[in-house]
Amino acid sequence: MRVTFEEMKDQFQRVLVSVGFSEERAALCARIFAENSRDGVYSHGLNRFPVFVQMVRDGHIHVKGEPVCLEQNGAVERWDGQLAPGMYTATRAMERAIGLAKTHGLGAVAVRNTNHWMRGGTYGWQAVAAGCIGICATNTIANMPPWGATEPRLGNNPLVMAVPRQEGPLVLDMAMSQFSFGKLQEYELKNKTLPVDGGFDQNGELTKDPAAIRESSRPVPIGYWKGSGLSLMLDVLVASLSGGRTVAQITAEGTEAGVSQFFLCIKADTLDQRISEEIIEYARTAQPESEDASVRYPGEGTLATRRQNEKEGIPVNEEIWQQVLGL
Amino acid sequence: MRVTFEEMKDQFQRVLVSVGFSEERAALCARIFAENSRDGVYSHGLNRFPVFVQMVRDGHIHVKGEPVCLEQNGAVERWDGQLAPGMYTATRAMERAIGLAKTHGLGAVAVRNTNHWMRGGTYGWQAVAAGCIGICATNTIANMPPWGATEPRLGNNPLVMAVPRQEGPLVLDMAMSQFSFGKLQEYELKNKTLPVDGGFDQNGELTKDPAAIRESSRPVPIGYWKGSGLSLMLDVLVASLSGGRTVAQITAEGTEAGVSQFFLCIKADTLDQRISEEIIEYARTAQPESEDASVRYPGEGTLATRRQNEKEGIPVNEEIWQQVLGL
Repeated sequence: MRVTFEEMKDQFQRVLVSVGFSEERAALCARIFAENSRDGVYSHGLNRFPVFVQMVRDGHIHVKGEPVCLEQNGAVERWDGQLAPGMYTATRAMERAIGLAKTHGLGAVAVRNTNHWMRGGTYGWQAVAAGCIGICATNTIANMPPWGATEPRLGNNPLVMAVPRQEGPLVLDMAMSQFSFGKLQEYELKNKTLPVDGGFDQNGELTKDPAAIRESSRPVPIGYWKGSGLSLMLDVLVASLSGGRTVAQITAEGTEAGVSQFFLCIKADTLDQRISEEIIEYARTAQPESEDASVRYPGEGTLATRRQNEKEGIPVNEEIWQQVLGL
Repeated sequence: MRVTFEEMKDQFQRVLVSVGFSEERAALCARIFAENSRDGVYSHGLNRFPVFVQMVRDGHIHVKGEPVCLEQNGAVERWDGQLAPGMYTATRAMERAIGLAKTHGLGAVAVRNTNHWMRGGTYGWQAVAAGCIGICATNTIANMPPWGATEPRLGNNPLVMAVPRQEGPLVLDMAMSQFSFGKLQEYELKNKTLPVDGGFDQNGELTKDPAAIRESSRPVPIGYWKGSGLSLMLDVLVASLSGGRTVAQITAEGTEAGVSQFFLCIKADTLDQRISEEIIEYARTAQPESEDASVRYPGEGTLATRRQNEKEGIPVNEEIWQQVLGL
């Protein structure tokens, strides 16, 4: 089953207003949820929406919270998100980073006490639409052991990098685990093995078996020790720049709420876009590994899915869609 | 065999002056080469020194080149490195990014037409010593296929992130390939297999055999498709911000010269360092995977090696040391 973008957005809007959102804020959050599904990130679009509404009802997300600037230092600001909806605050923070970049060449906003931003790529697309390079990161609840250990202490801590490009921006949206929890589940439900090692089994051996990784709670970070280090650094960066919660504190509270984020923009409207073009074209001159394979730049798949879903409607999980209609 | 830091630095200084460096510039570059060996990064310390001298003699590195600022836009500058020694220009660029950060809260310098910076971590340590968070990246010659292809089109493009911390800064210095060429060679010479998959063999199967990866020229990026995307993004970032050479152009010229780099600093002298402390301590509460294993933060191993080598002298490859003495 497929629904149109407008239909999905309108339903989200209706539900958000019903749980206390202002019309304006509901419109922004409904648009982002619908865009996430439209762009193929279903896990952080429709499929996440009921969870989001429950978090509002449970009081983890303050629908009327308004982020405040705690401190300004030139082109850097530190904000408190006041537990407002994460997508709202992230949009405002990136907007401000864009404004700072227009004035100073670059600008950054660190936000403490904010909430899940859903798809990090959203704010990368926002930055490039304003002619900026955007880089942002968030921390999360712990879901991976650090390299050399067996218990989860590191967050998935997605990192986003986006560069404007006329024919389709480059947008990298990359979590620190090799496979997300949702992806592991997807493989397990289909009874398939992973294409590459995704974690350790209970004997401490690397494995492609998603069930074994679920049982051990030992998914691996990208690049093993390297992603382990990068995940830790991103937590240090977002938490210490914002003065906010660390992965440790978020995990101790048991709910992925009150997280720390960082948004950086660099003015890029005078960049020579032929350079990006050349880099993409060069990558594409490499011999594909098989007839079906092709080299894609970050963001290319998103744009293709967006165009398809705009034309054909957004595919939905009918059960979840019915659930939202009933909210 | 071990030599003292001073002895190593003095030899480097002597040789650099003999190939045309000013005393001052020789002192800076000699110090960085000696520090790299002292910190355990032998591949970019003593072991690289004869190659560097050869590149000077071959005219790829202009010993008297002086980087120039092409453009200033608030807290962002664009420089041309004039093919000066890469460590010299990188030090000056990070120094300027620090200065911009002190004024504007954050600052950045993009440099085109510069040369190999040897160990990227050097400039991370430089930033933290000045009370700044430092982030920098460089492009390189192509050494890995993009995901889905079989021919090298991506650079190793190291990414450095450094955060000040009294008891030892956090410094991540991470190339995009799972194993460096030198590391693969080291395993092959010892007839050992890699601890995790490091590339594809000639049949397109993932392998831990370093010789098979050498034969196929298909090392894998960290996180497979993820690191492939990140490597491409870093090339876009450094080349388009600096208006400099891409991995494609560097590779076409056949010599790793005239590369593009980016240096970003954020003023961090008022950050609450207890936050980093908490993150490190939390990671260390995880059960180690074996009796020998331990969780380390990025930079911890470097500092330990530095202290040991300061005490005991820096271990050297005698053949290369003799070669340097004879230069």
